Amino acid sequence: MQVAVVTFDGFNELDSFIASALINRCRKDGLEAFVTTPAPVVTSMNGVEVTGQRPMDFVAEAGVVLIGSGVRTREVVADERLISTLRLDPSRQLVGAQCSGALVLARLGLLGSMPACTDVKSRPFVEACGVTVLDEPFHAEENIATAGGCLASQYLATWVITRVLGEDAARDVLGYVAPVGEERETVERALGAVGAGRATVR
Amino acid sequence: MQVAVVTFDGFNELDSFIASALINRCRKDGLEAFVTTPAPVVTSMNGVEVTGQRPMDFVAEAGVVLIGSGVRTREVVADERLISTLRLDPSRQLVGAQCSGALVLARLGLLGSMPACTDVKSRPFVEACGVTVLDEPFHAEENIATAGGCLASQYLATWVITRVLGEDAARDVLGYVAPVGEERETVERALGAVGAGRATVR
Repeated sequence: MQVAVVTFDGFNELDSFIASALINRCRKDGLEAFVTTPAPVVTSMNGVEVTGQRPMDFVAEAGVVLIGSGVRTREVVADERLISTLRLDPSRQLVGAQCSGALVLARLGLLGSMPACTDVKSRPFVEACGVTVLDEPFHAEENIATAGGCLASQYLATWVITRVLGEDAARDVLGYVAPVGEERETVERALGAVGAGRATVR
Repeated sequence: MQVAVVTFDGFNELDSFIASALINRCRKDGLEAFVTTPAPVVTSMNGVEVTGQRPMDFVAEAGVVLIGSGVRTREVVADERLISTLRLDPSRQLVGAQCSGALVLARLGLLGSMPACTDVKSRPFVEACGVTVLDEPFHAEENIATAGGCLASQYLATWVITRVLGEDAARDVLGYVAPVGEERETVERALGAVGAGRATVR
């Protein structure tokens, strides 16, 4: 299954790359992530130029779509043309958002009555969309998930891996990348936050 | 102070971007990180093309040099020309390495008798250089640090921020990027691993 990690200009490297790098540890099992961008090259909030691996059309065909965060998300949601390229369908896709990415899901009307996680700076803007913001790192209902705090992108990745390949695959990935001597703690924290796929349906 | 995050072809995005993104949260305080590469563009282990922000010459003038990890580090240490561009001087620079980056420090003869942290795949190659590998996520002595497990790159960043700007600055950064609802736990774990700058001199 293919994962689109949607990455806009001004993106936060933590969001796009923690999620994509963790998911790409599962490439041998057929799960792979691609940095998906609205232009051939995007520039991060810290001035790093990254060449997109897939164009925005890829969003419609991916099995999983993760919306990254950044310093220009409010411009993104005000851009009708850009927003129209995000054709998401949670009935057949897993859809996740990191930090300010929750604002994109709210703008697309995908959150419905479900609460969301985000970062402190994005919080008032997400709330202005009528969405309740949780003081938690991760929340998922059915096929939609949000995470708050950039390092929580590991929970989005854990959710995707668990939903697509199962808990053992997530354990393998987290066990490998976790700080040495803290593997077990990291794995249990991530699977606990995600509910190991069990608590994802309300 | 400027930080060179040395990033080779085949690099692991977690290593270079967790460290650089966390450090760049301190740009307003004069501490900033630059992706430093041996070619104008490098390609990650997952096929992501990134344009370097600084050439390798920058290593000699940076106040801090962090060596990232990747799938081609053994080729890097076998490349005399490339290794000769890494002119590091721990008497005036902070020098850190992530996962297989420890192999680069070993190759440069910078570890002396100090033990190092690395990942499980790199471990036998680091040990073959006569270096003792610790089952710990982070270890520093004076101006040299190593971290093991890709997500432990947050400890390298914490060490740099603590050494240059102090513990409060590190608390601010980690408090902002940590998963919402887990800020305190994340901050304490990171500062604990680093010893908050207090345990860095043997």
